[in-house]
Amino acid sequence: MPTLATLAVRFGCELIGDPDHEVDSVATLQNASPRSISFLANLKYRRQLAATRAGAVVLEPRFAAECPVAALVCSNPYAAYARIAAELHPLPAAAPGVHPAAWVDGSASIAPGASIGPGAMIEAGVHVGERAVIGPRCVLMQGAAVGDDTRLVASVTLCRRARIGARVIVHPGAVIGSDGFGFAREPEAWVKVPQLGSVQVGDDVEIGANTTIDCGAIEDTVIEAGVKLDNQIQIGHNVRIGELTVMAGCSGVSGSTTIGRRCIIGGMVGIAGHLTICDDVHITGLTLISHSIRVPGVYSSGWPAEEARRWRRIVARVRRLDSADARRGGPGPSGPGAETSDEGGDAD
Amino acid sequence: MPTLATLAVRFGCELIGDPDHEVDSVATLQNASPRSISFLANLKYRRQLAATRAGAVVLEPRFAAECPVAALVCSNPYAAYARIAAELHPLPAAAPGVHPAAWVDGSASIAPGASIGPGAMIEAGVHVGERAVIGPRCVLMQGAAVGDDTRLVASVTLCRRARIGARVIVHPGAVIGSDGFGFAREPEAWVKVPQLGSVQVGDDVEIGANTTIDCGAIEDTVIEAGVKLDNQIQIGHNVRIGELTVMAGCSGVSGSTTIGRRCIIGGMVGIAGHLTICDDVHITGLTLISHSIRVPGVYSSGWPAEEARRWRRIVARVRRLDSADARRGGPGPSGPGAETSDEGGDAD
Amino acid sequence: MPTLATLAVRFGCELIGDPDHEVDSVATLQNASPRSISFLANLKYRRQLAATRAGAVVLEPRFAAECPVAALVCSNPYAAYARIAAELHPLPAAAPGVHPAAWVDGSASIAPGASIGPGAMIEAGVHVGERAVIGPRCVLMQGAAVGDDTRLVASVTLCRRARIGARVIVHPGAVIGSDGFGFAREPEAWVKVPQLGSVQVGDDVEIGANTTIDCGAIEDTVIEAGVKLDNQIQIGHNVRIGELTVMAGCSGVSGSTTIGRRCIIGGMVGIAGHLTICDDVHITGLTLISHSIRVPGVYSSGWPAEEARRWRRIVARVRRLDSADARRGGPGPSGPGAETSDEGGDAD
Repeated sequence: MPTLATLAVRFGCELIGDPDHEVDSVATLQNASPRSISFLANLKYRRQLAATRAGAVVLEPRFAAECPVAALVCSNPYAAYARIAAELHPLPAAAPGVHPAAWVDGSASIAPGASIGPGAMIEAGVHVGERAVIGPRCVLMQGAAVGDDTRLVASVTLCRRARIGARVIVHPGAVIGSDGFGFAREPEAWVKVPQLGSVQVGDDVEIGANTTIDCGAIEDTVIEAGVKLDNQIQIGHNVRIGELTVMAGCSGVSGSTTIGRRCIIGGMVGIAGHLTICDDVHITGLTLISHSIRVPGVYSSGWPAEEARRWRRIVARVRRLDSADARRGGPGPSGPGAETSDEGGDAD
Repeated sequence: MPTLATLAVRFGCELIGDPDHEVDSVATLQNASPRSISFLANLKYRRQLAATRAGAVVLEPRFAAECPVAALVCSNPYAAYARIAAELHPLPAAAPGVHPAAWVDGSASIAPGASIGPGAMIEAGVHVGERAVIGPRCVLMQGAAVGDDTRLVASVTLCRRARIGARVIVHPGAVIGSDGFGFAREPEAWVKVPQLGSVQVGDDVEIGANTTIDCGAIEDTVIEAGVKLDNQIQIGHNVRIGELTVMAGCSGVSGSTTIGRRCIIGGMVGIAGHLTICDDVHITGLTLISHSIRVPGVYSSGWPAEEARRWRRIVARVRRLDSADARRGGPGPSGPGAETSDEGGDAD
Repeated sequence: MPTLATLAVRFGCELIGDPDHEVDSVATLQNASPRSISFLANLKYRRQLAATRAGAVVLEPRFAAECPVAALVCSNPYAAYARIAAELHPLPAAAPGVHPAAWVDGSASIAPGASIGPGAMIEAGVHVGERAVIGPRCVLMQGAAVGDDTRLVASVTLCRRARIGARVIVHPGAVIGSDGFGFAREPEAWVKVPQLGSVQVGDDVEIGANTTIDCGAIEDTVIEAGVKLDNQIQIGHNVRIGELTVMAGCSGVSGSTTIGRRCIIGGMVGIAGHLTICDDVHITGLTLISHSIRVPGVYSSGWPAEEARRWRRIVARVRRLDSADARRGGPGPSGPGAETSDEGGDAD
């Protein structure tokens, strides 16, 4: 088991406390024992510091004085905690090789150190890189490729020619490379537009459970390196998401929109198609993005809840703004400020 | 086939009609034959009562006089109907044992009366209780546990150490125990925070199709007994949902939020993280909850649709409120009533 | 390889250019080579026409004069392109027969020309039509039926008795026929209402990845012919969707709502239950539909994003409308225009 000194040196912390104290786990401030490391990164939990029984707490210099136990002091406690936790709680290594209850096409190329789990189905021309883990019941369709050290946890579907980089994690139920939503309108039918592109997922990406990423119509849909997507996200065809952008659960991006680097996108955000979002944009949850964003900053359009009767009065008064202005002979529908809220149906 | 007298006695109804009349099915008021039981629980369907040909109708006392056929009278017709329907249309029993096309690790503990269906993949240390049904193509990862009489319909993924109680139903595509969305921010990367907890699902819970429930960061995510979750719901890490709460489809709860008991949450509701919602709260559909709720009641923030040109005028007028007040020297951005609509990205 | 003359004749275009020029692929205007067909259907891309090196471009008559290469002229270039792309890039035919790693119950009826892929699980009484393709890891539960030429791409779950028509495409992770969300309320419990109906999907429907369609409570949920549903859509029990309606990703329809024909529904739209939407309705993205719509037209209620501080001021001013009116002795909560925004929890 590592000592506090070992952890301090390895993860760049200043140690205040017994360098030889051994720890074997992480825990919350409230429930830690002396064998555990805890951390303080969110001020909400500051009150729990005084009573903690942890072996040591990872924290910022300004809290060191109030720490009743050993302290691992650094400028970014949450990141240091993340690395310590990975050290103390390593994922069990998956046994290399192909499970007897998996099926692998003869033309697939599986690196010797890769692990293929029970129920995995691997079609022709698939490539699986070194130390990659293909968990139970994954489906890798023709020509898909998975980079070194990538992990498809379980029940993931990669459609034809989807290309996943190195050190990627894909959570269960995700679908990568399904057809983009493309139909041409005729009077009596919708004609399916073949979706001939694929999906490229860069290195060090994480994709959440039941998230769907559509393939491109001709060229590819691209998720750049270091992007983190939460669960239940929908990415439309020919979207490009820039490096290090993170997106919280249930959000959706319509086709052909480009999102810049280092963006932070909240949950249940809806982004219309054919837009450009620049770098370093922060979008709060339940917001509708219906126009391109060219200036970094924070953008919102969610309405915080009210008690229901009060909300009905608010809605009623806002509606009367429209009638009141009409009676006063106010601006017509195309007056200044008249905007289209037009995140329309993407049947393009 | 049961008689009306049998049903009346078993399900606590007063019978007005022939006690020896036999029935074998349920049907809608409109389409019932004399062999069927129907019910009236929603006033919208009252007009259909007069013309029904059902063998008997389950209804409240105030409608008994207008019922043209036999009546099973009770105070809660919908609940009585539910029990009668389950009696008349029992689910076929699944054959106990392990299907030849399933794969079960030698160290898994499967009760003799449990049923493991084709394509199910059961890893080491898994426990499956008596009369549990693990449907086709389910994946139960290391250390997962399923209680007695629980049914995973098909295509369900339980991640490592997920614990499911008794008499739970999980619908296809649900994922229980995938990693919570935790990343620590550094200048050039997001550092993954290991998600070391699991998920506890209590007895008598129902979880809808393609719903995802993340495991906890250190301690567990908890779904208490009797909770009912619809389809396509996302539950973030370390959420706790109180007993008997129901949530409609496509809603999402960000990490570390606690929801009380007996709450009724509509569809497409977004609930921010680190909040507390007390018991007996009703949230209508498409509402953003960005602050804790401490008082039982009904809460809303959805905007009902308008004809599109009218809507654009409303949006334009609301925007001009901001400019108009600025010209009059009104309150600044931090004035009374200035609130943060901050259901932000949950990259914590 | 086909010539331009062949394509012009087959797909009803007028050819301006060399009839014997051969092409073998499609490409974007920007990246096309002389072996490729490109198209112009969206004015945004008009600037790319002048520099294209495509073998020919499919476009409307008004752009023919500015086309620097051969032109395939027609009134609906996008539809013509769709058909040309399908011709030049046909899907590989799936080999008929049952894959050795599939499992098919002895009582299932599989047409000789159908293709059952690896890991597919087909239960008793299932019917699979001619030239249907059941991709890897699909689950077809008891009594399900799949029509001729229908394709379940991979990882699709059809629940018991789900009936899918001809020439349907279902994308990975979709679940068709899971239980509707039905519970009867008692003081100390929710009583499950058995969901005894099924789902009928008409011919020429397309259903997106991870979309869920619930079975009916007694009668069926119905998706009529020609409907196109994008990814991550939730369809509640006993919904009926009319012919040729299209719906973009992440939208949800609560139970017992009927949607007409040829509707166009944007992304993240929430439609309450027990409503009727007439034909030819267009609903823009992130809109709440809480009342029936009886007049064709365009309907909206999404709020386009603002810079966050401006948004907080807007929210603050809208809230003060309520207080201001109260001080002036304005209309009470049930005054004219007071509406219920009541897309409530669907625990019916």
